[in-house]
Amino acid sequence: MLDQGQEGAGVLLETLNWRYATKKMDPSKKVPAEKVERILEAVRLAPTSSGLQPFQVLVVTNDALRAKIRAASWDQAQVTDGSHLLVFAAWDNYTDARIDDVVTRTAETRGAPRAAVAEYYDRLKGMYLPREASVNYEHAARQAYFAFGLAVAAAAFEQVDATPMEGFDPAQVDEILGLKEKGLRSVTLLPLGYRAAEGDWLNGLPKVRKDRADLVVEVK
Amino acid sequence: MLDQGQEGAGVLLETLNWRYATKKMDPSKKVPAEKVERILEAVRLAPTSSGLQPFQVLVVTNDALRAKIRAASWDQAQVTDGSHLLVFAAWDNYTDARIDDVVTRTAETRGAPRAAVAEYYDRLKGMYLPREASVNYEHAARQAYFAFGLAVAAAAFEQVDATPMEGFDPAQVDEILGLKEKGLRSVTLLPLGYRAAEGDWLNGLPKVRKDRADLVVEVK
Repeated sequence: MLDQGQEGAGVLLETLNWRYATKKMDPSKKVPAEKVERILEAVRLAPTSSGLQPFQVLVVTNDALRAKIRAASWDQAQVTDGSHLLVFAAWDNYTDARIDDVVTRTAETRGAPRAAVAEYYDRLKGMYLPREASVNYEHAARQAYFAFGLAVAAAAFEQVDATPMEGFDPAQVDEILGLKEKGLRSVTLLPLGYRAAEGDWLNGLPKVRKDRADLVVEVK
Repeated sequence: MLDQGQEGAGVLLETLNWRYATKKMDPSKKVPAEKVERILEAVRLAPTSSGLQPFQVLVVTNDALRAKIRAASWDQAQVTDGSHLLVFAAWDNYTDARIDDVVTRTAETRGAPRAAVAEYYDRLKGMYLPREASVNYEHAARQAYFAFGLAVAAAAFEQVDATPMEGFDPAQVDEILGLKEKGLRSVTLLPLGYRAAEGDWLNGLPKVRKDRADLVVEVK
């Protein structure tokens, strides 16, 4: 059970208020490995549609590759100024083999008969496999976004700065990282690092968000 | 600053391990309003692409409407057994007016000249407005998934059970809630409530997740 002393989501809200999309990271500071691991664990624990986890996360620390990715990302400096670059890459399609892996893992983890688990996933295959690859990719990308959200939150809990990024050329990033051959497509980037003491125009500016009344509609 | 005593993302991981996709909720238990508010606040604080927040969240407590939504959701009982049903609904398209709202809010919140803010968003309009509505909707839906992830985490921090749901007919739910007229399309459902003492086949079963090695690729 959770510690009741956490005051519910207050700690999460405090954390989300602390974070911001860091524009300038200090290249001399490195995120400790154990922090990166906890961020990745949040990604691993993210729930996904039918438990498919239809994505992988690449942890890029290679400098030459990060320089290439930066060039494919409108030269955004956080890509190389951070110490780790997470690349969320979704499955380009659903396949028999990919879904069978989930069946195997579920049956093994829960000690359930494979046939019982397979029944559900056979129905899923009937829905997913005939669809266009692009439809399945979009579905997978949505799952990656859910996990991406948890990664951003986890980084903030670690007081690690992170910049959620869509501003890059996915085709180029796929090429740089050899994703196509793996049946993956890059969805989002998340540089991890520490904000620079100076030079970040966004640091300290108030967060801009809709008022509750513009976001929430109550249907009573 | 965050309290250093939180041990980083450990508290988030504990929370994510506590939650599960509750299959049977106790209809006699109601989630307190202040917990619902904190969950909605996590949604409000979610970062989104260019700060657009291109979605709304409907908080449905009306019993007759929830019964209709349940019928459009393969009769999943959590829709009516929970006390609140969150419906994440993304913008069906980007428009001049919707983007102008963000410009206004950003300029006002930051006390910045409108023209300076508008420059960035004019470039964005140049990219987004000529695109197919379906492309823009998919982009908006991804942002909704990020916020959806934070809502699931926030609910768990409140020890509120929540069931992330894609298994519903979006066209029917749009019709039931009158979303089309508002330029919205339903993306996901999230019933909030409390697990029933009995009758939930998933309660207590081990969580099924890929091993780290199957999820994470290190590129050194």
